[in-house]
Amino acid sequence: MDLRGKTLSASGFHSPVRGKIDILDDVLIEIDVAGAIKAIHRYGDPNYRTIRDAREATGELVTLPNGSYLLPGFVDLHVHAPQYPQLGDALDVPLEAWLQKHTFPLEARYEDLVFARHVYGLLVDDLLANGTTTALYFATIHQQATRALVDICLERGQRALIGKVAMDNPQECPDYYRDASSDAALEGTRALIDYVRGHPDNGESRVLPVVTPRFIPSCTDATLEGLGAIARECGCHVQTHCSESDWEHGYVLTRHGMTDTESLDRFGLLRRGTVLAHANFLTAGDMETIKAREAAVAHCPLSNAYFANAVFPLRAALEKGLHVGLGTDISGGPSASMLENARGAILVSRMLQSGVDPNVPAESRSTFGPAQIDFRDAFHIATAGGGAALDLPVGQFTPGYQFDAIVIDTAHEKGTVRLFEDRDAGEGILQKIIYTASRPNIAATWVGGRSV
Amino acid sequence: MDLRGKTLSASGFHSPVRGKIDILDDVLIEIDVAGAIKAIHRYGDPNYRTIRDAREATGELVTLPNGSYLLPGFVDLHVHAPQYPQLGDALDVPLEAWLQKHTFPLEARYEDLVFARHVYGLLVDDLLANGTTTALYFATIHQQATRALVDICLERGQRALIGKVAMDNPQECPDYYRDASSDAALEGTRALIDYVRGHPDNGESRVLPVVTPRFIPSCTDATLEGLGAIARECGCHVQTHCSESDWEHGYVLTRHGMTDTESLDRFGLLRRGTVLAHANFLTAGDMETIKAREAAVAHCPLSNAYFANAVFPLRAALEKGLHVGLGTDISGGPSASMLENARGAILVSRMLQSGVDPNVPAESRSTFGPAQIDFRDAFHIATAGGGAALDLPVGQFTPGYQFDAIVIDTAHEKGTVRLFEDRDAGEGILQKIIYTASRPNIAATWVGGRSV
Ligand SMILES: [Zn+2]
Ligand SMILES: [Zn+2]
Repeated sequence: MDLRGKTLSASGFHSPVRGKIDILDDVLIEIDVAGAIKAIHRYGDPNYRTIRDAREATGELVTLPNGSYLLPGFVDLHVHAPQYPQLGDALDVPLEAWLQKHTFPLEARYEDLVFARHVYGLLVDDLLANGTTTALYFATIHQQATRALVDICLERGQRALIGKVAMDNPQECPDYYRDASSDAALEGTRALIDYVRGHPDNGESRVLPVVTPRFIPSCTDATLEGLGAIARECGCHVQTHCSESDWEHGYVLTRHGMTDTESLDRFGLLRRGTVLAHANFLTAGDMETIKAREAAVAHCPLSNAYFANAVFPLRAALEKGLHVGLGTDISGGPSASMLENARGAILVSRMLQSGVDPNVPAESRSTFGPAQIDFRDAFHIATAGGGAALDLPVGQFTPGYQFDAIVIDTAHEKGTVRLFEDRDAGEGILQKIIYTASRPNIAATWVGGRSV
Repeated sequence: MDLRGKTLSASGFHSPVRGKIDILDDVLIEIDVAGAIKAIHRYGDPNYRTIRDAREATGELVTLPNGSYLLPGFVDLHVHAPQYPQLGDALDVPLEAWLQKHTFPLEARYEDLVFARHVYGLLVDDLLANGTTTALYFATIHQQATRALVDICLERGQRALIGKVAMDNPQECPDYYRDASSDAALEGTRALIDYVRGHPDNGESRVLPVVTPRFIPSCTDATLEGLGAIARECGCHVQTHCSESDWEHGYVLTRHGMTDTESLDRFGLLRRGTVLAHANFLTAGDMETIKAREAAVAHCPLSNAYFANAVFPLRAALEKGLHVGLGTDISGGPSASMLENARGAILVSRMLQSGVDPNVPAESRSTFGPAQIDFRDAFHIATAGGGAALDLPVGQFTPGYQFDAIVIDTAHEKGTVRLFEDRDAGEGILQKIIYTASRPNIAATWVGGRSV
């Protein structure tokens, strides 16, 4: 149901502040005609009853059924749209082989617009059904296919940030799949920005363009420099991969004599609205630089177990005050579900803290220090943290923010949540949702108040 | 549909041998009237066409639709039935606190038979819907509630092995929840065995009794010794926890001056059909002993990240030839899905091999050695491995085995599998199922040929 101009009576949860859950117990959420949140009235507020009665009288009140809980929609900070056909495939090879033997050949196929439309349509539908209301997409090098992704997101109503991938380094990119030149990479980037900003159906800027160097190894310095200039000039978001694996981290140290973060910063690519995928091997100095630039990290816990060979120190990054969101990294990670990735984030944080090797005595099994997070942090980075990383008003129920939301039906027959009335209450209900909910429990999804 | 006495035409997968997938491409599976597999005819076998035509003529042929794949039903080797209300709850406390503050109070509630019936009914239904055709259950100390679980499994048709939990050590068990004495623990165990074996609806022995010392800390030596004698005398399965956490492993070293495995062996509790949950901290000698006794390990990868603080060396155990199956460890693990646990088994195996700490150089991040498994091993332990661990003819499609099976509908609208015709074939389809399928993809479940 379209909620623009309506008032929703609901219970639910959000986490504007890391580590804390704000329980929305029987609140009224007023949504304006443009799909933004106008006001939130809590049960017991002086004017709660008056407003409720007034909205009811005018037929503007919509009430969620009992057992349904409102959450902010998920913000997926790292999706390779063209890799969706590869979800759950080719996870047993190292990153370089995965790129050269599996991923580049697949991405090269998006020269075929029919194939692109087919896959992108499926993906956007599936992500919406999984509760992902905002996605930050890597597309491919292809202009037409990337425009198709823009069209599809606008058509289906998903909030999306989309980048034409720039990759022109002949040393690291195959002949059959790379930008023909640095100029081609930069012109393609500009062309996509223009397309998105000038799109007749994009008046609300629900889709945004993103400057997208694949990662340092696949770009020449000229391209990195040119993309930095475009980002500054156009005021665009930026996304790339950063210090993901030992190989990649070492490659940049050798080529540029500095870390990924330092190098990206030098090219003007570390900005407010920059999202660095993975970032497993950041130095302490890198973290400071990312914080100073107000850039963000996309933590991809499932993918990292396959391709990074180490766990991103999420808790340390959050405690330092970095912006961090959660990403599925389709298809480096095998799941399109932000819930499954939220669970993964908790799981790997425990393993980083405790260590993994049973042959090593407990006291020396891990020397990392405190790393454990819980469902609160996982929920935060999947929603408000992602919104803050993108500097967009999404991921929380706060006046001025977009009404991007999902409903969890905890009683759905095909679902996997089981609540027990005499046990489950308060944020314990959210804990169960994070740990046990699955796609059938997601009963409704709204982006900007529109049902999608 | 009831398949007893029918012949099923289907494609699918099973893994009788670790590391190998046997692709069933358009096979005929003849099922006898008792629900066992009588014969398998592969497409191209000399008599394939004759048999197919004959069964079609008599109306005994049942054909799975295209896009549906037959798998053996999952064998969940470790479920605490009474803990289902706690699924996804209380995962951030250490094992001892989890037992004393959360789990024992919950289990004590099963003195209430109404509560027990309610929870057990839900659980068995949910496990069947998740494709678990055989479950090895810890119940509680209560005779009546445990009998209710037996009744419910018989009624719903799940193959189940059920133990009344024995726990009588006043040092480690609370006053409000323990067997009154060693005699009470032993008599309760015998009474449950008699109940299961004499049950009027259990003529086919679809439910089996299990000798179930909770773990060494919660049992007195007299009880452990008595249970060993009962297991021998009655020829029963045995289940317990073994070397799960540093604390628990250390406790037994202190109390008995030997490892869990050695101690259990001394009491006659390590036998063919014994299932040891977790077993993270086995010594090389322990592994040899377990192998010599033909006992088995229930690997519970998700639970271990929360409560064991180390990864079970699955690959080493498989390479040594131990029986290993997969367990959800409801509710030490937060998922009732064997698929989610299979994915967890792969994930943690990667992390054990690579290490987790990004601050440690790659070459010393892990000193464990090869630990990586893939979807083939994960599928094997979730099915055939579990069957072999229990010494039951389930978990594979082989003449003489029970027809315990599930259908994965890869095209289900609410499901999460996406196959692409021009890419996905052969065991790649199984890989995608293991990585991406969820409850809505499980379209049918049979136990002994009966639809459940
Ligand atoms: Zn990526
Ligand atoms: Zn257990």
